[in-house]
Formats: sequence, C-alpha cells, structure tokens
Amino acid sequence: MNEKVFRDPVHNYIHVNNQLIYDLINTKEFQRLRRIKQVPTTAFTFHGAEHNRFSHCLGVYDIARRVTEIFEQKYSDIWNSDESLLTMAAALLHDIGHGAYSHTFERLFATDHEAFSREIITNPETEIYRVLSQVSPDFPEKVASVISHTYPNQQVVQLISSQVDCDRMDYLLRDSYYTAASYGQFDLTRILRVIRPTETGIAFERNGMHAVEDYIVSRFQMYMQVYFHPASRSVEVLLEKILKRAKWLFQQEGYFFEKTAPNLIPFLQDHFTLNDYLALDDGVMNTYFQSWMTAEDKILADLSSRFINRNIFKSVTFNEQSQSQLYRLRDLVQSVGFDPEYYTGIQASFDLPYDIYRPEKENPRTQIEIIQKNQTLAELSTLSPIVKTLTGTSYGDQRFYFPKEMLQLNDLFAANKEIFISYTANDHFTPPKK
Amino acid sequence: MNEKVFRDPVHNYIHVNNQLIYDLINTKEFQRLRRIKQVPTTAFTFHGAEHNRFSHCLGVYDIARRVTEIFEQKYSDIWNSDESLLTMAAALLHDIGHGAYSHTFERLFATDHEAFSREIITNPETEIYRVLSQVSPDFPEKVASVISHTYPNQQVVQLISSQVDCDRMDYLLRDSYYTAASYGQFDLTRILRVIRPTETGIAFERNGMHAVEDYIVSRFQMYMQVYFHPASRSVEVLLEKILKRAKWLFQQEGYFFEKTAPNLIPFLQDHFTLNDYLALDDGVMNTYFQSWMTAEDKILADLSSRFINRNIFKSVTFNEQSQSQLYRLRDLVQSVGFDPEYYTGIQASFDLPYDIYRPEKENPRTQIEIIQKNQTLAELSTLSPIVKTLTGTSYGDQRFYFPKEMLQLNDLFAANKEIFISYTANDHFTPPKK
Amino acid sequence: MNEKVFRDPVHNYIHVNNQLIYDLINTKEFQRLRRIKQVPTTAFTFHGAEHNRFSHCLGVYDIARRVTEIFEQKYSDIWNSDESLLTMAAALLHDIGHGAYSHTFERLFATDHEAFSREIITNPETEIYRVLSQVSPDFPEKVASVISHTYPNQQVVQLISSQVDCDRMDYLLRDSYYTAASYGQFDLTRILRVIRPTETGIAFERNGMHAVEDYIVSRFQMYMQVYFHPASRSVEVLLEKILKRAKWLFQQEGYFFEKTAPNLIPFLQDHFTLNDYLALDDGVMNTYFQSWMTAEDKILADLSSRFINRNIFKSVTFNEQSQSQLYRLRDLVQSVGFDPEYYTGIQASFDLPYDIYRPEKENPRTQIEIIQKNQTLAELSTLSPIVKTLTGTSYGDQRFYFPKEMLQLNDLFAANKEIFISYTANDHFTPPKK
Amino acid sequence: MNEKVFRDPVHNYIHVNNQLIYDLINTKEFQRLRRIKQVPTTAFTFHGAEHNRFSHCLGVYDIARRVTEIFEQKYSDIWNSDESLLTMAAALLHDIGHGAYSHTFERLFATDHEAFSREIITNPETEIYRVLSQVSPDFPEKVASVISHTYPNQQVVQLISSQVDCDRMDYLLRDSYYTAASYGQFDLTRILRVIRPTETGIAFERNGMHAVEDYIVSRFQMYMQVYFHPASRSVEVLLEKILKRAKWLFQQEGYFFEKTAPNLIPFLQDHFTLNDYLALDDGVMNTYFQSWMTAEDKILADLSSRFINRNIFKSVTFNEQSQSQLYRLRDLVQSVGFDPEYYTGIQASFDLPYDIYRPEKENPRTQIEIIQKNQTLAELSTLSPIVKTLTGTSYGDQRFYFPKEMLQLNDLFAANKEIFISYTANDHFTPPKK
Repeated sequence: MNEKVFRDPVHNYIHVNNQLIYDLINTKEFQRLRRIKQVPTTAFTFHGAEHNRFSHCLGVYDIARRVTEIFEQKYSDIWNSDESLLTMAAALLHDIGHGAYSHTFERLFATDHEAFSREIITNPETEIYRVLSQVSPDFPEKVASVISHTYPNQQVVQLISSQVDCDRMDYLLRDSYYTAASYGQFDLTRILRVIRPTETGIAFERNGMHAVEDYIVSRFQMYMQVYFHPASRSVEVLLEKILKRAKWLFQQEGYFFEKTAPNLIPFLQDHFTLNDYLALDDGVMNTYFQSWMTAEDKILADLSSRFINRNIFKSVTFNEQSQSQLYRLRDLVQSVGFDPEYYTGIQASFDLPYDIYRPEKENPRTQIEIIQKNQTLAELSTLSPIVKTLTGTSYGDQRFYFPKEMLQLNDLFAANKEIFISYTANDHFTPPKK
Repeated sequence: MNEKVFRDPVHNYIHVNNQLIYDLINTKEFQRLRRIKQVPTTAFTFHGAEHNRFSHCLGVYDIARRVTEIFEQKYSDIWNSDESLLTMAAALLHDIGHGAYSHTFERLFATDHEAFSREIITNPETEIYRVLSQVSPDFPEKVASVISHTYPNQQVVQLISSQVDCDRMDYLLRDSYYTAASYGQFDLTRILRVIRPTETGIAFERNGMHAVEDYIVSRFQMYMQVYFHPASRSVEVLLEKILKRAKWLFQQEGYFFEKTAPNLIPFLQDHFTLNDYLALDDGVMNTYFQSWMTAEDKILADLSSRFINRNIFKSVTFNEQSQSQLYRLRDLVQSVGFDPEYYTGIQASFDLPYDIYRPEKENPRTQIEIIQKNQTLAELSTLSPIVKTLTGTSYGDQRFYFPKEMLQLNDLFAANKEIFISYTANDHFTPPKK
Repeated sequence: MNEKVFRDPVHNYIHVNNQLIYDLINTKEFQRLRRIKQVPTTAFTFHGAEHNRFSHCLGVYDIARRVTEIFEQKYSDIWNSDESLLTMAAALLHDIGHGAYSHTFERLFATDHEAFSREIITNPETEIYRVLSQVSPDFPEKVASVISHTYPNQQVVQLISSQVDCDRMDYLLRDSYYTAASYGQFDLTRILRVIRPTETGIAFERNGMHAVEDYIVSRFQMYMQVYFHPASRSVEVLLEKILKRAKWLFQQEGYFFEKTAPNLIPFLQDHFTLNDYLALDDGVMNTYFQSWMTAEDKILADLSSRFINRNIFKSVTFNEQSQSQLYRLRDLVQSVGFDPEYYTGIQASFDLPYDIYRPEKENPRTQIEIIQKNQTLAELSTLSPIVKTLTGTSYGDQRFYFPKEMLQLNDLFAANKEIFISYTANDHFTPPKK
Repeated sequence: MNEKVFRDPVHNYIHVNNQLIYDLINTKEFQRLRRIKQVPTTAFTFHGAEHNRFSHCLGVYDIARRVTEIFEQKYSDIWNSDESLLTMAAALLHDIGHGAYSHTFERLFATDHEAFSREIITNPETEIYRVLSQVSPDFPEKVASVISHTYPNQQVVQLISSQVDCDRMDYLLRDSYYTAASYGQFDLTRILRVIRPTETGIAFERNGMHAVEDYIVSRFQMYMQVYFHPASRSVEVLLEKILKRAKWLFQQEGYFFEKTAPNLIPFLQDHFTLNDYLALDDGVMNTYFQSWMTAEDKILADLSSRFINRNIFKSVTFNEQSQSQLYRLRDLVQSVGFDPEYYTGIQASFDLPYDIYRPEKENPRTQIEIIQKNQTLAELSTLSPIVKTLTGTSYGDQRFYFPKEMLQLNDLFAANKEIFISYTANDHFTPPKK
C-alpha cells in the first residue's frame, strides 16, 4: 500500500505502511478510542491533557514499527521478521479494551479491560477480529496472547509489556507533552539505537545505559508529580462515590436510571455483553452524570454536580499509625451533615518504579538487562546507583478525602470544623495525642 | 491573593493573580468549557487536537494579562490601568457562549454563540454574573460590551477582537501545538515587545513588523492547511445532515427524540432557554448520535454511524462554471440509492487573511498599524509585500461531498459509478463537455 | 561498518553508515571546518550563532542521506542507487573550500571558495582526495563536478544546489536554531515525504506544496531579519576596511605584517597556494587583528580595536535618488577628522527569494516543480500566491556606514555633527532639498 | 534607559533595563568573552557546543534579573532591593576572568581565573572597573567580594554560587541546548516560582521540591554523559602535553616561541600581567598550536597536529588496584617508540553531585533547604530518596590515555601492541594476574 501518515505531536508523523494496520485503525472498535481519554482524571488538574487513547495507541504502534524495522535490519539473525507484524498489531491493540474511566469503573462493576481486550480481538463479531483473521485464522489468538503475556516469544511480549516497553515509552512522552510536565521527557531516539533482541527477550547496549536510567527516573517523576496528583485522585474518589451511590439507588429507583442512563443498566444489573461495554465512553458517562445533577436523591445529585463543576474534595495524607484514628475525621464529617460513606474516601497510590526479577513474587518483573562490551548481561540497577535507589521500593502516599466545606467556618458547625482543621494542618492528618 | 498557576503546554504557566479571575474560572459556566472542544471536527483529521475551549480561554486571558501588565508599566500615560481587569475578564470570557459543534449547530438551530456569551455574562442567574458584579454593578455589562465590540475604548476592544488580538494569537499557537502543524508558530514574545496602545487603539512598533507579518502568514497557512482540511469539513457536512434529518424526523417521531436526546428537544422545538443551551456539550451530542445509530429511520441511523465510526464522505472541488452542473453528480448519487438531500452536500470555506479598513464594507476591519521611527502610523500592507498579497483577497475552495461508496465498483451500480468517477478525477469536478 | 552517530541539535543524530563518509569527516581538511564559523559576522548580532561549518556540512550530508535512502526505497525505477554515495559525499564537501570570513576575504584578495573546494577535492595532495579516490579514480572529479553543477545527472546537482536543496534546508534550520530567530523553521519531515526524483531533476508532490511554500517564506524572512541585519553588515564593513588598510600598508611596512600576520603574507603578495589558504581560519585572522590593535598605523590600530571590541559603525539606508548626495556625508565624516576611505562604507544586501527559470539570464535558476495529482508538473509560483509575490523581485537595502562618533555631540565638531544628524534622521539618509 | 534585548536560544530574550549592565556588556573585557568557548574540549565530542562564555554570562545575568525582580515584588520584607543591582552585576561578571582552555592552562601555568576575575573587576585600569565605580567607589570591591564568597549577605552569595545558583542553572540549560544532550533540561520556570530569600540565604518552597530534585539529577547526568566524556578529556590530555612540551622546550628554544607564540611568552617566563592574560583567547592559542605543527621538535609538532586535526588519544579506565601496574602500559608505549612522558597521561574526573553542609570539610557546601508548609526548613536529601543517593558520594572515573597507534597492528611493533591490547580489553585496564 501507499504509505499513510498521521500527524502526531509526539512522534511528528505516525507512518503506516501495512494495509492490516490501516484497516485496524479504521474499525469501529479502534475509532471508539477517540472517545476515551488517556488520563481522564488528570485532565482535571492539567487542563492540557485531553488526549485520547486513540493517539496513544497509534504512538505505541509507531514505536513498535521503528523497533521492528531496526530489528529486521540489524538483528535478522536473532529476530524473526514474521514477528514484526504481530508486534505492531499487538502494540496498536494493547489498550483496545479500555473503557470510560477504566480504573474506577472496573473497581465498581468488576469489569476487566484486559479481558475485554482479549474478547474484542478474538470475538468473530468484531471488525477487529475480521481484519486480523485475514492474516491467518490463528492471528487474532496470537495477538491476544501477546497482550496477555502468554505468547511464547518473550522478545515480542517484552516489547509490548515490560519495564521498558513501547507502551510506557509512548505514554510518558505523550502525557508529558499534553500535561506540559517536562519530567516525562527522555531520549527515545537513543533508546531505539541501543535496544536489541536477545535469545530470551530484550536488552539494551551499555552505551545507552544512561538513556534507560533517565527513562526510569522520568517515569518515577511522572508518577510522583502527575499521575499521583492529589487533585486528580480527588476526581477519582468522586467518581467512585457517584457510581457507588448509583448502584445502591438502582435497587430502588430502577426507572430513573433506565431513563437517564440506559447504557449503564447492564452494569448496574451486573449482566453485560461486549456490546454493552463498547457503548460506554467518556462522553456517555459524563452525559449521565449531568442528567443526575437534577436527581431527586440529594446525594447523587450533589456528587454529580461536584464532579461536573469540578468542585472536588480536599485531602490529607495519613500513615500506618494514624490510619486507625481516621474515624475521628469521618465522625466530624458526619457531625456536619455529610454522609461519610459518600463524602469521605481513602485513596492510596503507590508505584514501584523499578524492580529486579523476583521469582518468588506473584507477578515477577522482567528486569532490565544491559549488554556490556564483552556481550555479557548485567541487570540495570547493578550499574546505576540512581536506579538502585528506586529498585524494590514503592513510592506514593495514601490520602483521606473530604468535602472542602469542612475547612469553611462560616456556618453553624464551625466548632466541629475547627477541630477537624486542627487535625489536618499542613495537609497531613495528625490525630490528637490521646 | 496568592498567585495560582495552571500548567499549560503553550504558555508554560497561566498566572492568576487576581481573585476575580480565579473565581470566574471556578464557575460552572466556565468549567463547562472543559467539555467543549476547540476544533471538534479538526480532531477527526489531526488526532492530537482534542484540546478544549477551557484551555484556549485561559491562554487568551494570559496573553491579555501580559499585554496589560506591559501597558501599565510602559504606557501608563496612554493606558488607563482601570481597563486591565476588564480586558483580562473579557479575554477569559470571550468564548463563554460557545457550545457543542457551534458552527454547525448554529446554522441548523439558529442559535448564536455571541448572544449566549452576552446572556451568560449579564444574566443575574449565572455564577459568572455573580462574580463579575462584585467588581461593580455595571461590570458585567462592560465585559459584554467589550466582547460585542461596543465598548467605547478601542484599545480594549482591539485587544480582544481585531486582526491581531489575544484570541487569535492563542488559538494559532494552541491549535498548532495540538495538531502538530508547525505552521501556526510565530514569535509571540516579540509581538508582546512591540505592541502599544495608541490614542485610537492598538499598534505595533516598526522593529517588530516582521513578527506581525509572520503571524499573518502563519494564520493564512493554518487556514489553508488545517482549518480547511477537506476531511474535517466532511465531518461538518455529516453533522449537518444528521441534525437536518433529526429536525425533519422530529415532526413525526417526537417520542423517539424525547427518549434518546432529551436535552435537544428545546432546540428541535425551537424554544430554548440559556439553561437548555448550557446542558449541551460535545459528550452529550455524541451520546445522542450514538443512540441514533440504532434508530429505525435508516438515514438517521446510517449517518450517525458514519459520524461515530468516522466513515466520512469524500469530496471534489468545483468552481463557478461547473457549479450549475453539480446536479449531474447528485443525480448519480441518487441513481445508486442514496437520498442526495442527505448524502450529498456543499461546503465552501473561504478566509480573508487580512484586510485594510474599508469603511464602505458591512463589517470593516480594523487595519494593523505600524508605528514608524518618526512615530507616524503606516498600515501593515504598505510595508510588507507578503501581507500585500494576502490583503483583500479571500482564499479557500468549495467542495461537493458524497459517500465514498460512489468510488467503489463492486456492485450493481458500477456503470453509474464509473460515470461519477469520470467526472471527479483528480479531486476536481469536471462536468462533461456537453 | 558499525553505524556511528554524531549528536546534533538540529537533526538529533547525524547517522554515518558508510566508511567513506566517516573517513572524509576525519580528514584534516574537513576537521578544519571546526575553525570556520557558519555566520561569523551574524554572531556579533545574534550571540548564540557561534556554530561552525563542520556542523552545517554534517547536517547537509544527513539530509542527503535521508533523501537518497527514500529515493532508493521508493523510486528505484528512476533513481540510480549508485548516485547515492556521490550525493552524500558532495553534500558533505560542498563547503569544504570555505575560509575565514569568506565573503569579505574573497572580495579583498580575489580568492574563490568554490575554486578551492574543487582543488581540495581533486588535488592528490589532500587527505580528502586520498579518501575519495579509494572509491574509484574518477570519483574525486565526479564529486567536484556535482559541486560546480556540471555533473550530467541533474537529480544529484539539484539536491546539492537549487532553490530547495539540502544545503539551504540545513542552514535555515541551523541558523534559526543557533540565532534563536524562529523564522527559519519549516517542516523538513514533510518536505522529505514529498520530494521525488523526476526524469530531469527533483520535484515535490502536490500535497506538500504548502511545506515548500513555508520554506520559501522562511528563507525570505531569515534574509530580511537575520542575514541582512544592519549590525552584522557593519562588522563586514569593518572587516573590509581593516583588510584594505592592511593591503595598502603592506607595500610600505612589509616587515610588520611578516611578524604579526605571517599566514596572510601570501595573500598580501597575491601569490598563494592551497596550503596557504588552509592555514587561515577565524582564530588566526582574529589573532592578527588583535596584534594589529597596537600597530603604529593609527587607522589600522583603531579599526582593529573597533572590530575586536565590537565598537561597530552605525548606518542609514539610502536610495537611488540620494546616492549621488552621499558625498555630503563623507565630507562631514572627513571634516570631523576621519578618513572617509576607511571610516565610511556602503553595504548593499539584496536577495531574490525565488525565481522561475529564465533562460535569458546569466545564471538561470532551476524553478521548483510541483507534481500534481495527474502527474503533470506545475511551477510553484503558479500555485502559491505568496510565492508569486516573492518571485523575480529582489528584496533588501543599501546602507551607508559611518563611525558612531558622528552622533555624539560632546566635542569641537558638534556643529558639523549636527548637520550630519539632520541628514540621517530615522535611520535614513535625507539630503538637503537643495 | 530603553530596554535592550539580546536574542538568546536558551532564555528567548535577555532583557537589559539598566544602563550599568548595558555598559558592562560593552566593555572590551566583557566582549573578549565572545572569544572564549564555554566548553572548548567538549566541542570536540559534541560538535554543536561551540557557544562562548559571553552567551553564558548573559544567561546567568538574566536569571539573576528574574530572581531579583521576583524577590523585590514578593519578598521585599526580607530582600533589600539595593542588592538587586549588585546581584545582577556579579552574575554578569562571575566568569570575567576565564581564559582560553582555562582548566588546563591554569594547571600548567599556575594562573587562577578567580584571581583574574577579581583583578579585572577591581583594577582601575579596566573598563569594567570604570563602569562599576560609577555606581559608587566601593561597588567594584563589593562585586568582587560576591564572586569570592566573602560578601556578608549570603542571599546574594548563594544566588551566584551554591548548589542551585544562577550560574549552574544557566550552564546546564545552555550546554544541554548546544550539545543536544537533553539530560540537562529542567524546569527553570518552576524553580523561579519557588525560590525564596530567607534570613540566612536562599531556600525553595516545598511544592517545587521535585523541580529542584530534577535539576540535581540533570546536573549529575550532564557530568556523567557530557562533561566527563572520554573523548573530550582526551583533548584535555593532549592540550596539557602540548603546553608541557612547550614549557620544556622554551628553556632551549626561546626564539622559536617568541616568533610563533608571542603572547604566550610571559607565561612561559612565569612573569605575566593582567593585560598579558587578556591577550590570550581560544583563537590565539589555536593559532599558536597551528604554527607549532611545523616545529622542528618532533614531539611538539606531532602533538600539535593531533590536536588541530583531532587525532586524539584513546583511553582505558583503571582502578585503585591496577593503578600501580600502569607502568606496564607506559613501558609498552615506550617500547613502540613514543615518549610516555608526552604520549601517555592520566585523567581523573570526579564530581560530587550534591552534599549537605559538613562544617568539618575544607569547603563545606551550602546545603539546599526546602521550606515546608509550616515554614520550617528541611534539607533536600531528607525529602528526596533520589537526591539521598547522590549525596556525599563522588561519581566519575580515572582513565589512562595513550596513542591510538597502540591498537594498530600493522607495523614492526605488533607483538608488543598485542600485549598492550590484551591488557586493555573492554576499555578497562586489566594487568596480568602476576
């Protein structure tokens, strides 16, 4: 086919030279990703970050295309060129099962975007399946197995999912571009120059070690500064509370939801199909939240209004010691007239920036291997003291969320609020000494 | 107040030092702009351009803040510092009345985003009004008059709306950043160094003339390359056809729309309020289109599917001579089974890149004045041959849109389609000689 | 060979995959380009622009590498892959004969950098020749003929030297990067996507027309804003006057120059070899100027000091009408005690931004051809009204330079200076009415 | 005065609003910095890095200008606005005493650029002094004391010289821009938002902690990847050997140096004045090296040629254990015909990325203080685990340099070279086991 290009702010152009890839992009399941934001709650804090998963998936594909082109040219002895198309297709489709506000939605409705990815790829009803199966009858299954890490060739699996994979490399650069948080920038070109297939997976040449190190630090800083931003997490808490209230209310007020949120019914009934899932996107969910702003149920209406109008909860950090005392804060919130079930929440965000392979763990990580001059492999943290620091330790915090009215002393409840304020000075929960 | 900042990819940080501005940003009417894309149809062509009007309005405000700070410092003799807050508020709110898919929506439902802007600002029911009126009772009216160009001080009016205003400067930079079409970049810093208030408006010092020239060329290129992209205009044509069909169908199938598109009813009935208008946004509209994909009416269902799944119309240019022959194309489209009323369309896009003041015109433009060394003013095109070329001439084209099935020869209608194809070679309509 | 890379701010990395290219870079003649600035007089105005011809030549090479790779892949029917190495070598070496302050030096000493390029490439004494002749005995001659435009294959010649060639594309981007004058930026990636070999040379596909147009405008703006900056041209005038004085003085004070400027003697004697030429570079010339600051000849000493300490001349524009009256300014400069031969100068800078092929002209230009959808060629200015404006018209100005002391009224000569000032208001020479 | 601007690639524009600063820039001592490269040996590895100290000093000044403007506006209670001009002048002049190839030159000739800075500022003969003393008679002395850290107000001293100062912030950004090594980028705007004067110096607000952390990591990576690059250090070794040979030869061949290197004589005689020092710059030194390429002394001629033509030494790392065995390599180099005194060298480069204040040390560092929400100060490494890792530990390596001919087996000495090669595999010195 004639090469097609998509203008892209991160990679300049996305190049498509393969009809299969072009046809996949034009399926309705892939076009749907235009309506799913990449970091929907982050956009409430970093207003520039409105980009969607469609862009991200194109970006992951394009990195995979560049990597496999290099592998075919430079490492044809160890890289099977038949794997290139598979790698590109898996890169493009790795997030195909993501839905609206995935992280929160999954917790509330027990959905699983990875299972949906698999189904979209392997269900003969989908356009994706029809395109993929033109390559060969087992191609959809192969693509799905790469995404679920069960494909035997670890080279392919690690390109799609490991501690330095095409997915992470794109989202760091992209989220950095759109949030304007420069931390996420690293030297992709350099990494592509030193990435190599090995017998057992993927490794990086020694002279690019610092580019990989910089990528690890960038990722760490994006988590600390952007992804774990307290305001974005507050939006997540609100979302969770809204959906929780809707679930509870649905038992009694089914008709209200049938009228205002028809596509959500299968999930409220815990009985949904793939098509039900595909019918939800950010705009649909927001439309429902907007219609709930005038619900008779005061809690649902109020929480929905807070979400739509970005009137978000405040938060304080707490630690292991003070956790058992959080009831004090909840009680005070209740004393002021808010139902703590819906007006307080805990949000813990931790990330393990990097780890070595630990076979005893449940999901052991594939460690990053550096190829030294003499061709032996060395694990990254043995060479980089900075990475060493970040290895095996989780970073993050846990926060208690509450309405910002708790900090406003202009009403009858001023006395209780003053106590609340005294416990939450400096953005940290400090329970009374006794 | 303590300065607040918003991280912004275009201006790095948006600085807010004034409580009024901060309170305006936090109103629900302003937060609603998060749900209105800046260039909703362009995003179908340039996938990165998902940014919203919220970002743009912050950017226009920030340019206005920088300009007025400079004016206060350097030109306090001729700039009244009382106008600074007014300028910033008008900059922030200049697009407050924009709605979902404004351009198309306005044509179909005879709404007017400028009238809505005025109402949002001056209607005592809105949060915007309540914030503005804290400055003074007549402040909302003043802000509205700046936006509608009737405010007496032309310095303020021209900063908000003229051929080089804060609005255009932000949207060129922003749309360029998000589309990755680098054409829109120009030297904003340089322009801010040479912008000056005069007795009668705004002018630019001679040593920054080339930066202004470059801005004019940038704007021209963005129109030609980005805003007038045939694919984006195809999305507009589809939108128009969908809404047109819905209007027609509503006469007979009112209940269907009450169920699937409740917030659109007031517009279908041509009887709407401000609140009705504010309840619509991109996500709501898209939700309705998605629900129409399964409508019984085949045309509405099909057009909606095409829109949602980005299965857009193709197009050819035509000219004055061939326009009268377009019926030939419509007839062929009809012969193949498509209702030409809904499956063909004309889209004309023209822009006048720059013009001098022509008092005889209906809406004469404020020409760009350059302050020469000896302090006399010269109109820009007298100094710049490039701008001269772009002065007074409109650029663009008109296109005839049709289903891409017309170019696919795999069915019964191949003979008619071949004629169609023979008329539309090279993306241009060439009717038969006789 | 193993690919080598050079980190480059403009192209990110310069990739070298060919041993010949790598060996050429390591010759002493090519390394010498590290000591020749790309825009030595511009650096006095734009302090960031200290970059050298070494960087530029690598950049031109890398663009040529990318173009020829594309040609080999996409247009192997019409592009002979044997020409690729020739094109890359010619791109790398096109400026190899440039010397210190070339433009001024050539005027004063009747040298010719193009003739030196040819000699460096074809003289068996040079390292460049030795490397090139390893390809084949006639390869040096071939490379030289590409640079002198006599090579038969116009595809190759036009890539190195035409109105859109690898040379210009690199220097615009590079000078823009280093001066920080953003005007020079254009979409190189887009141009590389649409550039194509034709039977008779090089052309560009229609869908990249605006990128080519933008490049033409960028080039025009760089000339107007950067290359023709009056302060940089003042440095050129100073240089010319210093060398002119040295030439004159050498007749009488030969020994002084043998001691202070040994490498310049062959040129002062008008009897020089290639090695004499290669022994001069920016640092050597500046060293000589510094040693002349203490010359007994007051004019040489003063001009040298002005150059070294950047105490440059001021200037006014003049036009055809006033040119004959410039003697008035010269007389006034003389009346104040400055020798007008050395303390006044005329500097005319004009550029023809673009032109069509005009066979009647001495050096007719190769016009830029655009390949339309139907594969016919159209000359660029017939498609682009902006380029049309810039076609066939030279832009620039001529300036009269003089010591800035003429504008300082604090001495005995204040009366004459006041007259001078009255003639030169607004940076323009206005002779008295009669 | 009317604001002047200098276009700058790093800071966009350098703004000069103060006549003193403008006059300082126009002194001959400051203009001389145009002829001193910022990283002269790095430019041999990163060809883009030709920028000079003139640019850097303008950049440091501009950061100081922005900081002091913020301090005047926001912290007038604790920042004495009289210190602003002093801070800006010291920032501009902090490197005024730097000379050609400072680091190597100082070692060989026992000069001290800091002492020269002081003298240039306080010697009544200089133009710098004359400009500074117009502020007040003691102003030159004050500026000098800031640069030598003896000025009592630690706020001012720390802005010019501490672990986060204007100097370092500019050179990281600038060297990163010109080398294209993106590692050096950090969020200057953010740091300027959180920098604050305290009673005892400078501190940073907690919400900018990660920007400071990122700066520390950036600096570390620039040292590891750019400043300590083995090829650049090879150029330093060559320089040192050339100058060492010249010093030794001067005892016997004084006339040769008088003729070829007149400005170096005072240093070869160890009897120099400020003017002697100011007469040397990069171009002058390179001119001398070029003239030495034809010296009768073979070693001087050869080393100079290697330097000029970038025919640099190779190197291997060694450690404490193997150091005592380096004589083996030296012996082998000698056995092949190279004088090891001039053809081998050791270069150790270590940097302490960050440290806390350790009063027991000779030059204790000023630690970086973070202002917490409750206004108490916390030292940076207590808050940042990444910085913790980099605290108090020096990073770098030591290398043994030798001619690359040692690795070429095409001559009589192949046997000895093979032994040499066997000791230096993998870029590391491994002496024989016994």
